[in-house]
Amino acid sequence: MSGILSRSDPRPSVLPDGLRVLRSGSATQGVLTTNEEFSAWLREREATDSMTVEQVPLDDMRGWHFSAGRAALVHDSGKFFSVGGVDVSRTGRGPRSWQQPIIRQNEVGILGLLAKEFGGVLHFLMQAKIEPGNRRQVQLSPTVQATRSNYTKVHGGASTPYLEHFLRPGRGRVLADVLQSEQGTWFLGKRNRNMVVETTDDVPVRDNFRWLTFGQIRQLLTVPNMINMDSRTVLSCLPSDTSGWLFDPLAGNGDCADPEFAFDLQRSLQASEAEGRHTDAEIISWLNDVRIDTAIELRPVGLAQLEDWELSRSRIEHRKGKHFRVIGVSVASGQREVTQWAQPLIAPCDVGLVAFLTRRINGVLHILMRASVEAGFLDVAELGPTLQCNPATYADLPPQERPRFYDYVLAARDNIRYDVLLSEEGGRFYHAECRYLVLECDAEPAVLEPHPDFRWMTVRQLMALLRHHNYVNVQARTLLACLHALW
Amino acid sequence: MSGILSRSDPRPSVLPDGLRVLRSGSATQGVLTTNEEFSAWLREREATDSMTVEQVPLDDMRGWHFSAGRAALVHDSGKFFSVGGVDVSRTGRGPRSWQQPIIRQNEVGILGLLAKEFGGVLHFLMQAKIEPGNRRQVQLSPTVQATRSNYTKVHGGASTPYLEHFLRPGRGRVLADVLQSEQGTWFLGKRNRNMVVETTDDVPVRDNFRWLTFGQIRQLLTVPNMINMDSRTVLSCLPSDTSGWLFDPLAGNGDCADPEFAFDLQRSLQASEAEGRHTDAEIISWLNDVRIDTAIELRPVGLAQLEDWELSRSRIEHRKGKHFRVIGVSVASGQREVTQWAQPLIAPCDVGLVAFLTRRINGVLHILMRASVEAGFLDVAELGPTLQCNPATYADLPPQERPRFYDYVLAARDNIRYDVLLSEEGGRFYHAECRYLVLECDAEPAVLEPHPDFRWMTVRQLMALLRHHNYVNVQARTLLACLHALW
Repeated sequence: MSGILSRSDPRPSVLPDGLRVLRSGSATQGVLTTNEEFSAWLREREATDSMTVEQVPLDDMRGWHFSAGRAALVHDSGKFFSVGGVDVSRTGRGPRSWQQPIIRQNEVGILGLLAKEFGGVLHFLMQAKIEPGNRRQVQLSPTVQATRSNYTKVHGGASTPYLEHFLRPGRGRVLADVLQSEQGTWFLGKRNRNMVVETTDDVPVRDNFRWLTFGQIRQLLTVPNMINMDSRTVLSCLPSDTSGWLFDPLAGNGDCADPEFAFDLQRSLQASEAEGRHTDAEIISWLNDVRIDTAIELRPVGLAQLEDWELSRSRIEHRKGKHFRVIGVSVASGQREVTQWAQPLIAPCDVGLVAFLTRRINGVLHILMRASVEAGFLDVAELGPTLQCNPATYADLPPQERPRFYDYVLAARDNIRYDVLLSEEGGRFYHAECRYLVLECDAEPAVLEPHPDFRWMTVRQLMALLRHHNYVNVQARTLLACLHALW
Repeated sequence: MSGILSRSDPRPSVLPDGLRVLRSGSATQGVLTTNEEFSAWLREREATDSMTVEQVPLDDMRGWHFSAGRAALVHDSGKFFSVGGVDVSRTGRGPRSWQQPIIRQNEVGILGLLAKEFGGVLHFLMQAKIEPGNRRQVQLSPTVQATRSNYTKVHGGASTPYLEHFLRPGRGRVLADVLQSEQGTWFLGKRNRNMVVETTDDVPVRDNFRWLTFGQIRQLLTVPNMINMDSRTVLSCLPSDTSGWLFDPLAGNGDCADPEFAFDLQRSLQASEAEGRHTDAEIISWLNDVRIDTAIELRPVGLAQLEDWELSRSRIEHRKGKHFRVIGVSVASGQREVTQWAQPLIAPCDVGLVAFLTRRINGVLHILMRASVEAGFLDVAELGPTLQCNPATYADLPPQERPRFYDYVLAARDNIRYDVLLSEEGGRFYHAECRYLVLECDAEPAVLEPHPDFRWMTVRQLMALLRHHNYVNVQARTLLACLHALW
């Protein structure tokens, strides 16, 4: 064939980062920190660290006030974040309109995970951290969670430990760096910078930090409310491209609950484009269809004027008790030096339900993704899980109003591969938990029915899009991180 | 090594689309349409098609009016586009502020190129099209250039030929579909959907359309003002991933002006990540740095209130004669059925200067990309060419105010590999032309000096980012398309 010489050798001279991550994932017993040492350290953190969180009326939050006409709840400094009202009008596919309170936070923060090799195995520096909204107080966060106000120190506060590893100059080798959205139903245009940076420096380990292998972290993803949302989104962005090397997840892995599913997951992670139900271009084309065919118009509305919402001295709540409340909390943290502050938090009315439906197609495991249109997204829609909802919303509605696969997910038993309660960001949300599920649906033909809002994708396709901004929403990123618990 | 089995076979069972495009690129003599037939057809179109364009005062444009206080120039329907004023305040890197007129066009249009195989070779359906702003009237456009108003037929007008191939249902196989920005200094948040769709249907060929191979098109990229901007941006988004197959650009290609450069271009297009000066993650990380460290604040300003700009009955122009003017034109097109309309156009004050500086690094050809911050971008910055400027801006400024490499590009002689005058979009811009250059800079050590706004990238890295929205600006996309003229 004219011009075509031969196949190139795709094997690079050094191990690709994706393979180094998977190898670290095999080290489930730990290298630098044993599992016993980790458990002892965690118990110690839980005994030592504490935070007192008390609900206070919105009007009584120190450092916060309502703007004129009770239009928005703002910090006295004008910084951090604010809670305002918005009128959302959605046209095109699924037209409807509503009003709601929403968090405005324009600053892009850093969620940074520091990596370093010990004994030839990549380790990640995890932090035991308490957030005011956490029901389980101590959770594992990435090395750094810093807003721009934090890290540019506009307030002259204490510096964030390890932050220097994520800033220029002196930043280490960047393994991942992606601007990603967060909950588009609660945040307006919020994005965080998800970074994984590898260092070769000597790194002093502070009391509330420990180096863990990816193998240890992925096992902790099966513990309820242990790995926090910020960790999960950064972990989902870890390199996964093995550049043509195959990886056997079962080699030396006696703990695997379902070896067949584990093997198929890895195979899907390494599936070529031709093995997918759709090509990469077709997936992006479908998302573009949704983005173009759906228009979201946003109009600011004062909190006191919001239809269907009641603003009282103490809180903001939906008149039917649906969705969420906005509450105020007063927080005291620390032992010797006590830090005190107040802030609003969004308190969802019930536990969210989030699920991936998976199935082999032509022998390759696929995940059914839904184009999730959320008012706060920068670009209308992102790829979300098959199901993502707040069950209370549907309590008083007829069954046909329920989201697709709602009943199917609730009825699932034998085909559940993952089912863990995890917390959303405790710095903005109060006791916000979701039940995250992964289901194996090979026996259910209904999942194959075509639907304009859904597409089957391989794990490789999803991981490739995670290298780029604003393709995959935060709930789907959590589940993609959690898939690693299944091999 | 535990868990690592072996290398996979990356060769898919079907030829990858990137390779099919390159093979079509080898067919420089044409298959379905010979070069002689093409030339005869083009002469005929130039003799047959015509458009009369007459400058008229802004106040006299039929169908347009100034909004209250002469704040903006709007169409009577409220649709299409408008010209308003904006105050731009840029902080962080390179802080400055200014005011300017800018085009607002919220609708996302389709730039669609239809592809079909004839004799085993991909062909693309090109259109001979006149736009009011074109100095050379007939240029080659993609199969479809349609705004959303066009294709949803809100005005009940004539349907756009071949549009059905790009819409569901009935859309063919999607080879590319990307939302891309256009000139961020002239447009506010404008995006178009760049689509390449392959059909197997019988396609009737209308008088002003012809099927050309990529080989014919890439040769036409050396003809001044022949391939229009919309074609160039769609062509830049063509698949280029050969999935491990090597392609020899010189096989059966006797016309190649510089075989060594041609070979190195192809090698760079197929370079592995490890061969690049920076990894893919490092490039995205650098762009994120610029996006986070630079803030652009936009504030609407009435056209009559713009500092440094003079709004008269006939036009809007900069008080120092810099940048561009906004003029009105009255247009009559067609032979038997004459269509008439009026519209504003942006008329730049001089010919733009746009250049790629290229150089081998460790034997692999790299392009020096600049993070281009443009007020109208959705996300602050995109990858732009090494140099992109309007020379008149610097005429009265001291040499140190000139952009990096300005003098170097103007002084270039022997190391010029591409140097062609090309038009920007003639539907919005009047006689807007840029001189597009590609320089080979291996002998110039100064280009290697590190600079926070510049990074060296392989052609493969750029082509991979072109699969995703809002990474590469329209001038860089033009030059990436034009690189194909060099093999």
